[in-house]
Amino acid sequence: MEVHQVVSGAGGESGMARCGAGLFSAAGKVRRALVAFGAKLAKIARDDPRRVAHSLKVGLALTLVSVLYYVRPIFINWGVSTMWAVLTVVVVMEYTVGGTLIKGLNRAFATLLAGFIAVGAHKVAYLCGNNGEPVVLAIFVFLLASAATFSRFIPEVKAQYDYGVTIFILTFSLVAVSSYRVEELIRLAHQRFSTIAIGVATCLFTTIFVCPVWAGEDLHNLAAGNLDKLADFLEGLESECFRENAPGENLESKPFLQVYKSVLNSKASEDSLCNFAKWEPGHGNFYFRYPWGLYQKLGALSRQCASSMQALASYIITLTKSQYPEANMELCLKVRTACGEMSLNSAKALRELSEATQTMTAPSPARTHMSAAIRAARGLRAELSQDADLAKVMHVAVIASLLSELVTQTKKIAESVENLARVARFKDPEDAQKDVVISVVS
Amino acid sequence: MEVHQVVSGAGGESGMARCGAGLFSAAGKVRRALVAFGAKLAKIARDDPRRVAHSLKVGLALTLVSVLYYVRPIFINWGVSTMWAVLTVVVVMEYTVGGTLIKGLNRAFATLLAGFIAVGAHKVAYLCGNNGEPVVLAIFVFLLASAATFSRFIPEVKAQYDYGVTIFILTFSLVAVSSYRVEELIRLAHQRFSTIAIGVATCLFTTIFVCPVWAGEDLHNLAAGNLDKLADFLEGLESECFRENAPGENLESKPFLQVYKSVLNSKASEDSLCNFAKWEPGHGNFYFRYPWGLYQKLGALSRQCASSMQALASYIITLTKSQYPEANMELCLKVRTACGEMSLNSAKALRELSEATQTMTAPSPARTHMSAAIRAARGLRAELSQDADLAKVMHVAVIASLLSELVTQTKKIAESVENLARVARFKDPEDAQKDVVISVVS
Repeated sequence: MEVHQVVSGAGGESGMARCGAGLFSAAGKVRRALVAFGAKLAKIARDDPRRVAHSLKVGLALTLVSVLYYVRPIFINWGVSTMWAVLTVVVVMEYTVGGTLIKGLNRAFATLLAGFIAVGAHKVAYLCGNNGEPVVLAIFVFLLASAATFSRFIPEVKAQYDYGVTIFILTFSLVAVSSYRVEELIRLAHQRFSTIAIGVATCLFTTIFVCPVWAGEDLHNLAAGNLDKLADFLEGLESECFRENAPGENLESKPFLQVYKSVLNSKASEDSLCNFAKWEPGHGNFYFRYPWGLYQKLGALSRQCASSMQALASYIITLTKSQYPEANMELCLKVRTACGEMSLNSAKALRELSEATQTMTAPSPARTHMSAAIRAARGLRAELSQDADLAKVMHVAVIASLLSELVTQTKKIAESVENLARVARFKDPEDAQKDVVISVVS
Repeated sequence: MEVHQVVSGAGGESGMARCGAGLFSAAGKVRRALVAFGAKLAKIARDDPRRVAHSLKVGLALTLVSVLYYVRPIFINWGVSTMWAVLTVVVVMEYTVGGTLIKGLNRAFATLLAGFIAVGAHKVAYLCGNNGEPVVLAIFVFLLASAATFSRFIPEVKAQYDYGVTIFILTFSLVAVSSYRVEELIRLAHQRFSTIAIGVATCLFTTIFVCPVWAGEDLHNLAAGNLDKLADFLEGLESECFRENAPGENLESKPFLQVYKSVLNSKASEDSLCNFAKWEPGHGNFYFRYPWGLYQKLGALSRQCASSMQALASYIITLTKSQYPEANMELCLKVRTACGEMSLNSAKALRELSEATQTMTAPSPARTHMSAAIRAARGLRAELSQDADLAKVMHVAVIASLLSELVTQTKKIAESVENLARVARFKDPEDAQKDVVISVVS
């Protein structure tokens, strides 16, 4: 009987049970999403633990600065201007020491300069009487803001002083506009500048003395890492394509064919790191005025190398997809061996260059691998030129092959544009013609 | 006599004259520098007149907002909070409509959210008594600032809400900290939010209604321009290398060999334009929720094509530098003709795809050129495969040639690292060895 009751009871409450199950599964989904999110955060933190340190540093700097506000004697002296210290910390604090330095200096100097000019503008406007003053001030704000905004389009200004120009416009407008109401202008400007200086000093203190992240070091590691990635590609190529029993299949999914891609896109972060590094004081093995620009040159060469690798990779992938007669003649084997030597030795040379860069030791051993690679290339060229007919047609055939690669890529571009035209509903060319005819007729 | 006097006088004043001449030449230098600077500014303005319009728009928006401050009734209502409208305009105003929209929305929502949380934090801290309050507030600021800063390392947050997070930290710290002193917290928060809303509204008004610059339109033009540059390269290649009486000399200085470089570096601006475009309302031929992501795909293909062009270009330059036997056999001429056809037809196809994208008409005519290029490539392949030996060795020879290109580039990288090692005074490897020995011995 009890069993029966329980069963019928369960039947009666099936709506509630379903509802409960639904809630349960929803809770499960939320829990899974939260776990996935937590795993993602943990991965971000594990990938570079300095990120956690940076987050705590921002919290620390802000807390330090806000203490100013809680301490009564300081508050009475500076009043609401203390806010500017908080504001400065939030906007100036950057991940790297160089970034914080640039922003801090930009902020301090731009504030000073704009303050002086604004006080001058106020004195001029004051001469124009009570009614004229706001008009003159508005004209000044308009002219200076427009000129300063235009200056940001100059590439040199954009690269180094973009933030400074923003602060210049901001401070000038704030001081010029409020000068119309605030009587003790000079005292206010002085207060604001000292609070900003305190904010900048707090930022610099925490970024430099608490687990510093140096842009220069990051730039250095980026350069060495790029060389490593290039070496990875060549090693993968050797083991997958040129070894005696190399599989040469399913190449597309191999990781070595993807590794050069991050090198191709490294320009933006390299440029900004270099920009920051130039401002950093000496640290570790890097002295002040270290030749950071050379890393940019090295990066440009690495990227060019990576783009040749991309061309080579796409050629190889096309080749493995199409059926072509297995070439088993003697020359072919020779070429293959030479290819293997070229890629292996270049990879070794790059690996040693990367290590030399990383450890900052002069790269003497790279030479032997480098010359082995060059010897292999030269030997192959000599080998091929023995067959005069072949040598003659070789070069132009290489260009033809590369060009037919380009044709394939152009075809892909055409398909992409056609897809865009379909999805974005481009006009039909015939309709467009009709439109023209109609408009001409009417 | 007079002549003599004048001459002797001139002799006596030669110091002053020299000084005057020096001043004169210095003034000349300054004038020349100013003229050069003016020319540079004029060029920046001429290259894109919208830059001038943008500068004037920033001036206009600031002037509009500062009028708030001059009008007495508004000032009495809002007090010093009016400043926040000025501040908002300066930091939110961006070059494109989408950029301004993202920043404005980020600012408004982050301020609202942070304001609510901060008021909550204030209520909690209030319960802890007079002495506990600042400590609890400081802990809150530390925790929230650290957590929010860490969230910026999540790629999705970084891409869309980076500015919002900054504003969140800023507002939370400002409100939480000042809540300790300011009694009328809610009124203050309300004032601040309405002034910020006014600032954002002013920015949006000026960016949308006064000569708007649409990120979507720029992205569209960038995509079409990239295709044009690829076509330029192929056209230049055809006319300089594959025509019957093509010069084929001094290729390195030709502009067509540089034109693909800007395509290679277009990723960063493409990504940010796409990000902005997604937020823009419909304008011109672009409706809201236009498939902007497809432009990124097209851009990725264009960049891959450009990197194949770079590989081809560097191969051709190496070839023209080295002496190789003039190949005048029949096959060579055929290959050359086929190359010319491939590049010319691909160029035409790209040109028409670019025009179709630009005018937003479906690209039907591209097909004829495209298929002509494909036919030329296929014909060449058939031609080459008639010579069985040649066909067999061709593919592997192409790879070998590309690899020997890579060897050359690796050599350049090695030289670059060696130069770096010399300039940055890397340790001598032998000294490093000694250091190790010494440290092991001791």
